Amino acid sequence: MAAIKNRSLAQPVSVDLRHHLNAHSKARHPSPLKDIIKFMGYDGMVSLAGEGLPHPSLFPFQSATIQTYPYDKNLSTPEVEKLVECSVDTSIGSGTGDQSLRDWAHEFTKTVFKPACSDFEILLNCGNTDGWNKIVRMLCEPGDFILVEQYTYPSAQALWIPMGCIGVPIKSDTQGMSPEDLESVLASWEEARPGVKRPHLLYLVPVGSNPTGLTMDGDRREKIYDVCVKYDIIICEDDPYSFLQFPACIHGGEAALNPTTPQEYLDSLVPSFLKYDTQGRVIRLDTFSKTLAPGNRLGYFVANPLFTERLLRATEVETQSPSGWSQAIAMSLLSKWGIMGYVEWLSNLRGQYFLRRNWMACNPSKHAGLVVFSKDDATLTTPLFSFIPPMAGMFIWARFYYFGSSRFRVLKADETCVDPEAVFETEIWAEMAKALVLLTPGSYYEPWQGKKKTTTKSRCGETGIGYFRLAYSLVTKEEMELGIERMAAVLEKVFKGESNVL
Amino acid sequence: MAAIKNRSLAQPVSVDLRHHLNAHSKARHPSPLKDIIKFMGYDGMVSLAGEGLPHPSLFPFQSATIQTYPYDKNLSTPEVEKLVECSVDTSIGSGTGDQSLRDWAHEFTKTVFKPACSDFEILLNCGNTDGWNKIVRMLCEPGDFILVEQYTYPSAQALWIPMGCIGVPIKSDTQGMSPEDLESVLASWEEARPGVKRPHLLYLVPVGSNPTGLTMDGDRREKIYDVCVKYDIIICEDDPYSFLQFPACIHGGEAALNPTTPQEYLDSLVPSFLKYDTQGRVIRLDTFSKTLAPGNRLGYFVANPLFTERLLRATEVETQSPSGWSQAIAMSLLSKWGIMGYVEWLSNLRGQYFLRRNWMACNPSKHAGLVVFSKDDATLTTPLFSFIPPMAGMFIWARFYYFGSSRFRVLKADETCVDPEAVFETEIWAEMAKALVLLTPGSYYEPWQGKKKTTTKSRCGETGIGYFRLAYSLVTKEEMELGIERMAAVLEKVFKGESNVL
Repeated sequence: MAAIKNRSLAQPVSVDLRHHLNAHSKARHPSPLKDIIKFMGYDGMVSLAGEGLPHPSLFPFQSATIQTYPYDKNLSTPEVEKLVECSVDTSIGSGTGDQSLRDWAHEFTKTVFKPACSDFEILLNCGNTDGWNKIVRMLCEPGDFILVEQYTYPSAQALWIPMGCIGVPIKSDTQGMSPEDLESVLASWEEARPGVKRPHLLYLVPVGSNPTGLTMDGDRREKIYDVCVKYDIIICEDDPYSFLQFPACIHGGEAALNPTTPQEYLDSLVPSFLKYDTQGRVIRLDTFSKTLAPGNRLGYFVANPLFTERLLRATEVETQSPSGWSQAIAMSLLSKWGIMGYVEWLSNLRGQYFLRRNWMACNPSKHAGLVVFSKDDATLTTPLFSFIPPMAGMFIWARFYYFGSSRFRVLKADETCVDPEAVFETEIWAEMAKALVLLTPGSYYEPWQGKKKTTTKSRCGETGIGYFRLAYSLVTKEEMELGIERMAAVLEKVFKGESNVL
Repeated sequence: MAAIKNRSLAQPVSVDLRHHLNAHSKARHPSPLKDIIKFMGYDGMVSLAGEGLPHPSLFPFQSATIQTYPYDKNLSTPEVEKLVECSVDTSIGSGTGDQSLRDWAHEFTKTVFKPACSDFEILLNCGNTDGWNKIVRMLCEPGDFILVEQYTYPSAQALWIPMGCIGVPIKSDTQGMSPEDLESVLASWEEARPGVKRPHLLYLVPVGSNPTGLTMDGDRREKIYDVCVKYDIIICEDDPYSFLQFPACIHGGEAALNPTTPQEYLDSLVPSFLKYDTQGRVIRLDTFSKTLAPGNRLGYFVANPLFTERLLRATEVETQSPSGWSQAIAMSLLSKWGIMGYVEWLSNLRGQYFLRRNWMACNPSKHAGLVVFSKDDATLTTPLFSFIPPMAGMFIWARFYYFGSSRFRVLKADETCVDPEAVFETEIWAEMAKALVLLTPGSYYEPWQGKKKTTTKSRCGETGIGYFRLAYSLVTKEEMELGIERMAAVLEKVFKGESNVL
């Protein structure tokens, strides 16, 4: 395959992917006003062409001092270390965002992810939500089909559903998306849907996926990438959880992660799709939302120059640069810390999520018969639910076995019940909410496949199976224990001791 | 007319304007995940349903201290007064933005603009660029016609041109848009363009318009509003310059504005369209970009509840809330200052732009024959250019009389020259850039009327007339003087003494 051959070359550049742009994106022209900006840099130029820019001497802000925690202390006992002073640069810029922050992100991406293509570029955005919005509006026509994971992030599809787009779910195993199923869907596309345009965009969260918590290893990525080369697919790697990776092993609820050096931590991370991307067909969405704070609303695209240029045209007329405060504050912190300081911060940070994952993953087993751990879901007995311990991120994806409940069996036998799995899910959810514990129903993560596929049966979903997602990021250990206790009580009541193992 | 009658009632509420929503906006559903948020507020609820939210204890930021200038000191000699301390709230929120900031904006709007409708709502956005993007995507279908000023803001139309939309320019006089021309365009629409959907959205910058610098008074607004009621038009009042209003009188270049109380300043402002909006058909875009700093990327919609709800659905999947830093910093400043403190800041601020306007407006007259001031452009002699002194904002819109130039007359006589006005404009602009002074060419502000109307002639533009825009916001007095001097030298050279008055 071309991509594989290409990998032996020193440093490829991206291939021409212009045919992926939609009509709307192709029709964008640079604002003539922005063209004037380049003349403004001439020595001695007097510009009377400023575009509604107030004079900086007329801002009420003089300077900002942000107190931060040190990157190298244990996060559970943080002490305020020093002050980051940043002068206030609160002007708009040209839409590209602060050049020093773009340079930092370029260097960071090169150091950490080692992209195959030499010509990747950085463009700032207001976080991955904004980033995904701009990607869809650059690449998709109304009615396009979009390749997604078997369970996918609802806000990502809430964007394109009103555009009339349709999701094409690809089956998953413990590594996430299956390259064989991807190949099979694409190979049989013309036959299965004659005359319908084949999808050309794949969206996935390959680390600590939301909702499944799955993380895809390097081999799997390479296989997925090769299929995407074969069928000319653009990959959107939405990767907010990439730095929250930790080992699978769950040893008790309290043991902290073994200390590692920043380099050992980096070496332990699964590679980004960028590493395999010899053609420039990966758009990576990176963000500071999970690693600094979501309120920064600050992230960036890593993409080929054609795409960053089109995305910049969109940025100029849609959002302009991210907040000047967010940029200035992030940049002063990152330049104080340096790349390896930030890496150490990330390594400490994921240690905290490791602990939280353990607290939550260990808890259900305290309640007899509630759950068995399973690497492949091929359990001998039938628990109420099982899950694959996540190796990254913030979520446990609990697989429920509904047939253990007589209530579910009644629903299933009732011919007037259109979607027993959905009805039972709603009932369990409502019981839990009444008992003051909130989970997220698995059906929220079903890819949207059009109005004809809104029931479990019409989607060919698994019979008698349901999912709930448990987030361990935002609660304390005590709240987690209380929550799981309430959940266990509700499940005992709902399943009324009729489960095989109760 | 219904609207006029309605005004006599105590406090009307907005009428049903659902039919203005485009198919895309109507198809938006609330994200089911966001629905869970309301359950999170229950007493004692343990939420394991958090949507990828990191734990706030894991952010590196502890607190922020922003040094600000006082609102009540002369801006030309600012002193840092006190510190605004703000605790760092950098979480996303639900897309609506910080409630206290929305409450502040609601109270501010009520106090300052006295909206006719009682049910207006506030929704935060990332500044007016983001706001306008979301309005167009809520109301316009591809190919729609949009009512705009005779000269309009290029970035606003750069958004909708790739959507295949077309601008319909409405003639202007010294007050901006003419209600008679608006009425005439709409009344004759079906006849002029049989079968083409009538425009239902009007976009304008009614104070210190970009580029014309014109400000529309209350009577004119009322007339425009009544036409919009008659023809069922939604008005987007893009009003970034609304607080930079000042008297027309230009007395020398140095005299400061007479001191006024904050209340006198408020009373001197032209009313917002909201004051006449008895039906809820005005969407006002307000921003802190010109009054605090553009880098805040922070503004807000004032609109009826139907529109704010649809705009919130877009916000959830496109941008989420504005930067938490921007919100927290703006809110702490505004709550320290109070509404009338902010009003005093605004009053002082516009005094600075008043000075700058005077500096620039007085300068050309130092160069003999370059310009005469004219309220109505009906001058007896022909100057090189004339302008209406702006009463707000940041721009002088200079009207050039090209026939004074032999070079232009040659172009005009040349039958192979498709657009003499455009060619001559480019030549003048290039000469100025060479002489190290940048102006913005007037053609940048021509409304886009489709590919067939890209020349002065095809648009039925004025023969022998051109415009350049001069911005006085971002340069010092010395730079302004230098810039005008260079400009005068270029014009003398280009027009070679052949103008009537030279």
